[in-house]
Amino acid sequence: MLKNIKIVPPFFEIGPKAYMYGDEMLALAKAIDEAAGEFDVRVILTPQYTDIYRVSQAVKNVLVFAQHMDPLPVGRGLGSVLPEAVKAAGASGVMLNHAEKPLTLAGLRACIARAEEVGLYTIVCADSIAEAAAIARLAPDVIVCEPTDLIGTGTVSDDEYVRASTGAVKSVNPDILVLQGAGISGPDDVYRVIRAGAEATGTTSGVMKAADKAAMARAMLEAVRRGWDAAHP
Amino acid sequence: MLKNIKIVPPFFEIGPKAYMYGDEMLALAKAIDEAAGEFDVRVILTPQYTDIYRVSQAVKNVLVFAQHMDPLPVGRGLGSVLPEAVKAAGASGVMLNHAEKPLTLAGLRACIARAEEVGLYTIVCADSIAEAAAIARLAPDVIVCEPTDLIGTGTVSDDEYVRASTGAVKSVNPDILVLQGAGISGPDDVYRVIRAGAEATGTTSGVMKAADKAAMARAMLEAVRRGWDAAHP
Amino acid sequence: MLKNIKIVPPFFEIGPKAYMYGDEMLALAKAIDEAAGEFDVRVILTPQYTDIYRVSQAVKNVLVFAQHMDPLPVGRGLGSVLPEAVKAAGASGVMLNHAEKPLTLAGLRACIARAEEVGLYTIVCADSIAEAAAIARLAPDVIVCEPTDLIGTGTVSDDEYVRASTGAVKSVNPDILVLQGAGISGPDDVYRVIRAGAEATGTTSGVMKAADKAAMARAMLEAVRRGWDAAHP
Amino acid sequence: MLKNIKIVPPFFEIGPKAYMYGDEMLALAKAIDEAAGEFDVRVILTPQYTDIYRVSQAVKNVLVFAQHMDPLPVGRGLGSVLPEAVKAAGASGVMLNHAEKPLTLAGLRACIARAEEVGLYTIVCADSIAEAAAIARLAPDVIVCEPTDLIGTGTVSDDEYVRASTGAVKSVNPDILVLQGAGISGPDDVYRVIRAGAEATGTTSGVMKAADKAAMARAMLEAVRRGWDAAHP
Repeated sequence: MLKNIKIVPPFFEIGPKAYMYGDEMLALAKAIDEAAGEFDVRVILTPQYTDIYRVSQAVKNVLVFAQHMDPLPVGRGLGSVLPEAVKAAGASGVMLNHAEKPLTLAGLRACIARAEEVGLYTIVCADSIAEAAAIARLAPDVIVCEPTDLIGTGTVSDDEYVRASTGAVKSVNPDILVLQGAGISGPDDVYRVIRAGAEATGTTSGVMKAADKAAMARAMLEAVRRGWDAAHP
Repeated sequence: MLKNIKIVPPFFEIGPKAYMYGDEMLALAKAIDEAAGEFDVRVILTPQYTDIYRVSQAVKNVLVFAQHMDPLPVGRGLGSVLPEAVKAAGASGVMLNHAEKPLTLAGLRACIARAEEVGLYTIVCADSIAEAAAIARLAPDVIVCEPTDLIGTGTVSDDEYVRASTGAVKSVNPDILVLQGAGISGPDDVYRVIRAGAEATGTTSGVMKAADKAAMARAMLEAVRRGWDAAHP
Repeated sequence: MLKNIKIVPPFFEIGPKAYMYGDEMLALAKAIDEAAGEFDVRVILTPQYTDIYRVSQAVKNVLVFAQHMDPLPVGRGLGSVLPEAVKAAGASGVMLNHAEKPLTLAGLRACIARAEEVGLYTIVCADSIAEAAAIARLAPDVIVCEPTDLIGTGTVSDDEYVRASTGAVKSVNPDILVLQGAGISGPDDVYRVIRAGAEATGTTSGVMKAADKAAMARAMLEAVRRGWDAAHP
Repeated sequence: MLKNIKIVPPFFEIGPKAYMYGDEMLALAKAIDEAAGEFDVRVILTPQYTDIYRVSQAVKNVLVFAQHMDPLPVGRGLGSVLPEAVKAAGASGVMLNHAEKPLTLAGLRACIARAEEVGLYTIVCADSIAEAAAIARLAPDVIVCEPTDLIGTGTVSDDEYVRASTGAVKSVNPDILVLQGAGISGPDDVYRVIRAGAEATGTTSGVMKAADKAAMARAMLEAVRRGWDAAHP
């Protein structure tokens, strides 16, 4: 099955988690979609499962991803999130192994295989450089690097941070895209990370806790474009 | 928040689990909806999370239930099924504690409380009479009784089976509705259970594995009505 | 199989959790054993699995319980805690469904059945009066009542607290013993709860965080005896 | 903290899982210990947690490993297997991520770090070559390779099998020992795998389901020695 939109850098992930749903999610998705087109930045948006259909119907530039899925085949499995159902609802991909929904290694491998099978992109979260390098062996499309063991050391510059985590992944598999996920709270953070060489970054609370969520998302996407153009003149 | 349709006996639960999704689910839901109206039987239908919105929009006589939900509040919780999102997508209720998605006792209690809070019915599964009596203490709307310790004993008649499990629940809380969930594979099974005094029954594989699923669902709903009228002349 | 020591009120549960192990656990167990004899109070002690054998060998008046077990049969199941192995190591019983190790309802029922089968007492934790009443249906030997929904309300007296939670259990099954587990931090708390009519109480941090753990355990056991004699003159 | 016995090839893992416990486990451990000395083969034995202490006290040539442990620190965590308690009971190491006790990637990383901290060896199970390579990034002491995607293909020779899986691990980290875990049911299987170049192999059912378990274990250890000497003349 075809994946409709190709993920190319620079891109940006917005994770509503369980903060937002229904009509409010739909309205924000439309605003993000418009900004994504305006600044020519791919956006991965991960709404609640129940909102995948409505959001998918309403966007053109946004890649809708499920927050998680289960690797089961069609059949039994009450309460599961079936890969085929995620795809049929309009999703382009799935996030896996977030710290709030960790997977066993065997489960992660099975999910990546199932995603490949039904035509879903995979974005897999890593909590350290060692974990990112391990996950790279499983060949997902995107790895989210949040190397908590580097955060807060003070002596590590933004450039070194981006370089080390990206390098750990690319040395295993250069085709995997890397998203730098460290504590983005505003457009300045976005600019700095992308300007430092990152292919992508993203946020949950930066948008979800903003007074004007649509305006914040738009400002961040503008910062992605500006940072990217400065880093790749 | 209001629950739109009241659950009254006789009713019937159809559980697609991970057997069906997308357009095929939608088409079957419409056929079930029509038969539910024709025979004046309430139906609880539990599609994949991703199909709740589409199915809810398409039915009038069917109560759409989520297969499961998580008791978390609005906020963090990536990969979760938020009660508010389930409700906003159009669901009337939620199934909980199925053998394929078991809950801790504390988690079950929390889910029932959250369902109450957002206005969702609860249908809770029990795998024995002891478990059904325990769950009755938590006051869900419906309990599914699949007393595996009685099944296959041979000496227990249908009437005794229905009476014992229903009695265990009603003696704790007479307001709880009881669904008899023992191996329904065709309309004759449906008729026999309802005729024996059950308020409700249901199936997954009976419909999901039928050659003509819509026809089988219709035949089972007809059997519910016929059994009920025979038992309550 | 016989359970060696009978649990009779008043009794007291000391839960080392993961605070203590090895030689320190053994030394404390011996001190507790001596005090349990001195004040004629049954003590349930729940060491790490790895310490069950050594502690069991060293005590006479203390009932050694596992902190948890799995309901699996003899056979496969790597990483499990086999009921037969717990029994063979010298344990008299097992704690189940603690908030830090919650069980599904079906799992709890299976564990109680397996405990019965191999000859282990069961002490099951409940986080509310509704949960205590539900668990009572499964007929464990002891229920720990920590009705968090009553704690901190201010208007509820100790006597009411003990009466309500004990009553909820006993009305279902009068043979089940009830342990009142609310925030015991010193001998005065122990005295007050037992004096108010409780059959048992217990602590983790009250002993584990005491400067002199053996002395604190001894003082608490003395308070159990004193409170019991005052309440049952 | 020191690890007492060094793991050097050839070695052999015997996994009692939940098949055996108590006095029978102790007697078998003693027989294995004697054979391990006789044939100068290191043995990793993974009894139930409750048997670690007794078995450790009774053996000289056998490395006793826990079947699993939790990465929690000393403190709260009822029902957990504390790394310090495992070590204090006499274990030399811990098995992690077996298919019957799978770990999240973050949990596996945390367990390996905790094992390092308290002085326990780690033997980590992988269900495929991709997973083995991923786990190698986390630097455990031993990886168990059970590449299920190769098993049963027929066209793959023993030599190729051993070479591919060992190579995948060693190319990431040559210090990691590799145990070939494919379906050993008798001494001939043991000889063949070790003769093909494996550093180690092991079994559960091969010993646990044998009529004379001690004799079977002894025959397998003899086969390890014979195969090793033939492969390394």
